[in-house]
Amino acid sequence: MTQPKINIGIIGTGRIGRIHAENLSLRLPQAEVLSVADVIQEAARRCAADFRIPKSPKDYRQVLEDPEIDAVIICSSTDTHVQIIEQAAEAGKHIFCEKPIALDLAAIDQALAAVGRAGVILQVGFQRRFDLSFRRAHELVSQGAIGRPHILRITSRDPEPPPIDYIKVSGGIFLDMTIHDFDMARYVMKEEVEEVYAIGSVLIDPQVGEAGDVDTAVITLHFRNGAIGVIDNSRQTVYGYDQRLEVFGEKGMIVVHNPRPDTTVISDKQGQHASPLLHFFAERYADSYIAELKAFIKCIQEGKEPPVTGLDGKIPVVMGYAAKRSYEEHRPVRLEEIDPNLAL
Amino acid sequence: MTQPKINIGIIGTGRIGRIHAENLSLRLPQAEVLSVADVIQEAARRCAADFRIPKSPKDYRQVLEDPEIDAVIICSSTDTHVQIIEQAAEAGKHIFCEKPIALDLAAIDQALAAVGRAGVILQVGFQRRFDLSFRRAHELVSQGAIGRPHILRITSRDPEPPPIDYIKVSGGIFLDMTIHDFDMARYVMKEEVEEVYAIGSVLIDPQVGEAGDVDTAVITLHFRNGAIGVIDNSRQTVYGYDQRLEVFGEKGMIVVHNPRPDTTVISDKQGQHASPLLHFFAERYADSYIAELKAFIKCIQEGKEPPVTGLDGKIPVVMGYAAKRSYEEHRPVRLEEIDPNLAL
Amino acid sequence: MTQPKINIGIIGTGRIGRIHAENLSLRLPQAEVLSVADVIQEAARRCAADFRIPKSPKDYRQVLEDPEIDAVIICSSTDTHVQIIEQAAEAGKHIFCEKPIALDLAAIDQALAAVGRAGVILQVGFQRRFDLSFRRAHELVSQGAIGRPHILRITSRDPEPPPIDYIKVSGGIFLDMTIHDFDMARYVMKEEVEEVYAIGSVLIDPQVGEAGDVDTAVITLHFRNGAIGVIDNSRQTVYGYDQRLEVFGEKGMIVVHNPRPDTTVISDKQGQHASPLLHFFAERYADSYIAELKAFIKCIQEGKEPPVTGLDGKIPVVMGYAAKRSYEEHRPVRLEEIDPNLAL
Amino acid sequence: MTQPKINIGIIGTGRIGRIHAENLSLRLPQAEVLSVADVIQEAARRCAADFRIPKSPKDYRQVLEDPEIDAVIICSSTDTHVQIIEQAAEAGKHIFCEKPIALDLAAIDQALAAVGRAGVILQVGFQRRFDLSFRRAHELVSQGAIGRPHILRITSRDPEPPPIDYIKVSGGIFLDMTIHDFDMARYVMKEEVEEVYAIGSVLIDPQVGEAGDVDTAVITLHFRNGAIGVIDNSRQTVYGYDQRLEVFGEKGMIVVHNPRPDTTVISDKQGQHASPLLHFFAERYADSYIAELKAFIKCIQEGKEPPVTGLDGKIPVVMGYAAKRSYEEHRPVRLEEIDPNLAL
Repeated sequence: MTQPKINIGIIGTGRIGRIHAENLSLRLPQAEVLSVADVIQEAARRCAADFRIPKSPKDYRQVLEDPEIDAVIICSSTDTHVQIIEQAAEAGKHIFCEKPIALDLAAIDQALAAVGRAGVILQVGFQRRFDLSFRRAHELVSQGAIGRPHILRITSRDPEPPPIDYIKVSGGIFLDMTIHDFDMARYVMKEEVEEVYAIGSVLIDPQVGEAGDVDTAVITLHFRNGAIGVIDNSRQTVYGYDQRLEVFGEKGMIVVHNPRPDTTVISDKQGQHASPLLHFFAERYADSYIAELKAFIKCIQEGKEPPVTGLDGKIPVVMGYAAKRSYEEHRPVRLEEIDPNLAL
Repeated sequence: MTQPKINIGIIGTGRIGRIHAENLSLRLPQAEVLSVADVIQEAARRCAADFRIPKSPKDYRQVLEDPEIDAVIICSSTDTHVQIIEQAAEAGKHIFCEKPIALDLAAIDQALAAVGRAGVILQVGFQRRFDLSFRRAHELVSQGAIGRPHILRITSRDPEPPPIDYIKVSGGIFLDMTIHDFDMARYVMKEEVEEVYAIGSVLIDPQVGEAGDVDTAVITLHFRNGAIGVIDNSRQTVYGYDQRLEVFGEKGMIVVHNPRPDTTVISDKQGQHASPLLHFFAERYADSYIAELKAFIKCIQEGKEPPVTGLDGKIPVVMGYAAKRSYEEHRPVRLEEIDPNLAL
Repeated sequence: MTQPKINIGIIGTGRIGRIHAENLSLRLPQAEVLSVADVIQEAARRCAADFRIPKSPKDYRQVLEDPEIDAVIICSSTDTHVQIIEQAAEAGKHIFCEKPIALDLAAIDQALAAVGRAGVILQVGFQRRFDLSFRRAHELVSQGAIGRPHILRITSRDPEPPPIDYIKVSGGIFLDMTIHDFDMARYVMKEEVEEVYAIGSVLIDPQVGEAGDVDTAVITLHFRNGAIGVIDNSRQTVYGYDQRLEVFGEKGMIVVHNPRPDTTVISDKQGQHASPLLHFFAERYADSYIAELKAFIKCIQEGKEPPVTGLDGKIPVVMGYAAKRSYEEHRPVRLEEIDPNLAL
Repeated sequence: MTQPKINIGIIGTGRIGRIHAENLSLRLPQAEVLSVADVIQEAARRCAADFRIPKSPKDYRQVLEDPEIDAVIICSSTDTHVQIIEQAAEAGKHIFCEKPIALDLAAIDQALAAVGRAGVILQVGFQRRFDLSFRRAHELVSQGAIGRPHILRITSRDPEPPPIDYIKVSGGIFLDMTIHDFDMARYVMKEEVEEVYAIGSVLIDPQVGEAGDVDTAVITLHFRNGAIGVIDNSRQTVYGYDQRLEVFGEKGMIVVHNPRPDTTVISDKQGQHASPLLHFFAERYADSYIAELKAFIKCIQEGKEPPVTGLDGKIPVVMGYAAKRSYEEHRPVRLEEIDPNLAL
């Protein structure tokens, strides 16, 4: 550990903000969290107390102005991301931003431009890329283990729907939930998507439909090289968080199964029984959240390109809008219809 | 075994005809194969010799005219099915016909009408319904084990493409290969499909493309009740015949995995290794071919409705044309566009 | 199929005799069953009727005297085996004999001597060797896939105990049940056992203990080359027939898992559920019973050494007595204590 | 977190001492490590620096004399355990001691007596009890999920042998390696063992034999209630750390499989391939090491009986000696032969 420690400020102490605070404080000795900000100052203070963080301002600008801080972790609400990114970039802080960067594409471009001008590092919080099994799938594809990939299947199902109030401001399932799968599709296939086709249904909760969204969806992806992808999403499983992936290619197939909380199996008259899956993302991606920040810190220390760039943060948003339009207009939609300037 | 034996004639002794001849002769004591016909009489004779079948005419009409014969198994080329069905029905023979009944929808209607008039039994050869594991999935759905089904996923991939000459007359992947999956979708979901969306690529063999077909396809299904299905097909796997299914619903999920040829696993420095999958349909569905004929014979003996009806034979053809048009016109296609009179 | 058909007589039409009759009649076209004998002639007649066998004498000697018959399958009660083997050998018939050849070692030697004098083929009915997965384990060991084997584990548990009256004449668990595992140990390790240590308990049914037997046992095997084996037996499982094996060696491990009746898995709130195992040997070893007779017929046709010899039939009996004495005398027992002349 | 923090001193900073130091410092906020001692003071200092521990004396007595310290973690060499336990108990410190307490039974009794007199908590480091899957097996047995247990199987194989110099002072495989499995047997069966029978071989490295030890062993356990256990041990696997367990009982079976480092499976022409197992105990039991200390801290905070008592630390040593004698004298050995006063 000859590398200098990286001093960190965290902006936003909701669920994910606290996960990052805990990981940085307890599990990543190469980082030091100096300050944690939240518009609800009480939340910032509680977080600071729990993880022995010295400062806990209400105003995130105090984090940006702190000369000791090298990098910020942005976990505030989506609508604040762009402004904070711009200011952080201007203040010369490296930036880790939760997904999505923004729901407005022009605003994303603006944020990325600010980052580019400042020459700081921006990493976007697609933590699934850091899951050991998905990463191994990506590496096997990269090594040519299955030759040219032909078909991608992603299953991504949450244990339970978020509150209806959240759904109303979430941008809809394609921008809120499928966005992770769009990123995974690009990551594991190492290829860009040209066109998407989405169908959706309201099968779980009629209120989701009343909020203008669907709770069950299947999205077909057409990759530039002719490969085909398919993502299925549901907002509700009774058996735990279901996150699987399969890449089928000319020389074989790679499957990522769900991990299980334990390896105990009981056999009785009725058959063979294993435990339900891990509950949700905090359990499933516990190690991924650590790994993504470890990677972020390492990029800062070594001055390297981050493993999830600003463009990686933008493209899934374009895909989300394409899926949304496809669902609404009941037809396949090309990504360039959403962003004609998207240079893929 | 107090039921009378059923006397059978087989028409066509290609690969599947010989499978049925062997099963009926060696494994189904409730049946007796009296005659086997083939336009290549030498093939009929060889089949007769191998399975101790008394007669082996060149002309299938000798089978239909044989008063001792109760039922015929039609395994001749697809373009002959309708004519033989009509004549067999007129001759009062019960009919087991390989899929597809025909590639022409009007001809199918004509055949079904002839069967209806004659009051004979017609069972169509969708053998996958008789696979123990798929059957168990169907039964679990029927029993409400997972509540209302939301998402269906079918993976159906062949080990190797058929000869290009066959592909040219096959009707294309959606009518030749996906047709089995369309049937499986209806069987396991117990619901009709309203609309399909198909995309396809030529990724395995450019000659398939030159023949006007694709070798890789993903088909999305919209069921009447809002459930969504997705089928993925490939003409070539290196790891064996891949036939899986998943039904996800409000109370759980049913998954049918691939069976394996053996249960031996070897662990070494590189990891844990199991055998490749069974090679192809003859191995994977060996027991299903026996079970479908057993069911057919039982229907005759007991005068019951067959488990796969003429309409079950027709609808997947309609779905195949809808998928074909969807692929060609690059848009979702409703089944009623293909057959406005289809009473679902 | 240029090889001449082998004409077969079956002696004894209990459960296993009928399995062989069915397999030879329906599934092995290279054989023809000409005669089936049983002391209960009605049983012989029923078997003959069910599988279209021409003759069904009460006296097995009519089978041995039948000049058309090439080979006999001996499925009568154990105490009759030796006499029938001797007479069959003298009559020049090839012999397939169910296990055990006899419970008396001197009688086994006598039978093997008669077979040797007559120069006929004797194959013993250790059908598990013909199970595809166990066979693959044997082949992997033979190929050196795991280097030198160090530890063998066999689990062999029946779904339910046999009737107490059967247990009383069975020779005890080690000679009745473990005998199959002793054979498997030799088959898969390709090495002889020098010494055994057995412990047993009555945990399932006190009547088993009153009959002088145990229903739960663990037997440790010391192989000549220093490898160690362990067999665990139970007379009762609630989850189906449990037959597994593991060979651990210097370069890896081979595991044979239980096959399952179907590959359907259901996930719900409680977890993930698969079907119970196959019920018992008739289901688990259905294909093995076919394969062992196929191999027997092939040996006759080609005049080859059978895959399970008379000595293979004797050694597990010696091991059974050694295990019995070990249990009774509460100490490890060497095989040479049981049979000083055993040339291993 | 209203409970007061527990101040900890660590004695011994070898591999396991550093694991505990890291867990207590980074992952267990309810504890504070104040001091870490090692006879090699440089090692203590490095450990203190790495995990921000204030003091790093050479002499462990400085830890015991530190009035701020509530509890000590003893990770020094086995031959020092008893003396340190006695002194720690006298100093009123709660004690967590790595296994084995000692290789001398009288010394263990002496240490337990000192702990009893002082009324401090002593927990022994059998960390496997805290593995989620083994714990679940224990709980399922406790709940009667499989009724009365009949057969226990434990597989416990290390990836590679320790240095020969270590083996010479280790007490032999039964006291060094099997001791963990003896503890597991008692834990999961909730019953005591009366008698053991051990056989062993030198199959991996002749030097192990020259050092008077074996590298491959199978140990049979006879439980008081008639249940039978069998443990198999090897000092070398090529496929990773192999730690499995199976409890078979009247109403079913519980199996604990090995966890895998990832859930990625690749299928190709050769078959289906998964990654090797986790390398060794530090990876496999990473969470267990955290959980055992969490439990220890909680016992101190709540004044409760520890989950692994001093007697739990002693009995496996008795079992180890019984196994050793069994191997040497080639006969089953009762535990009371080793310790006539053992009150089970």
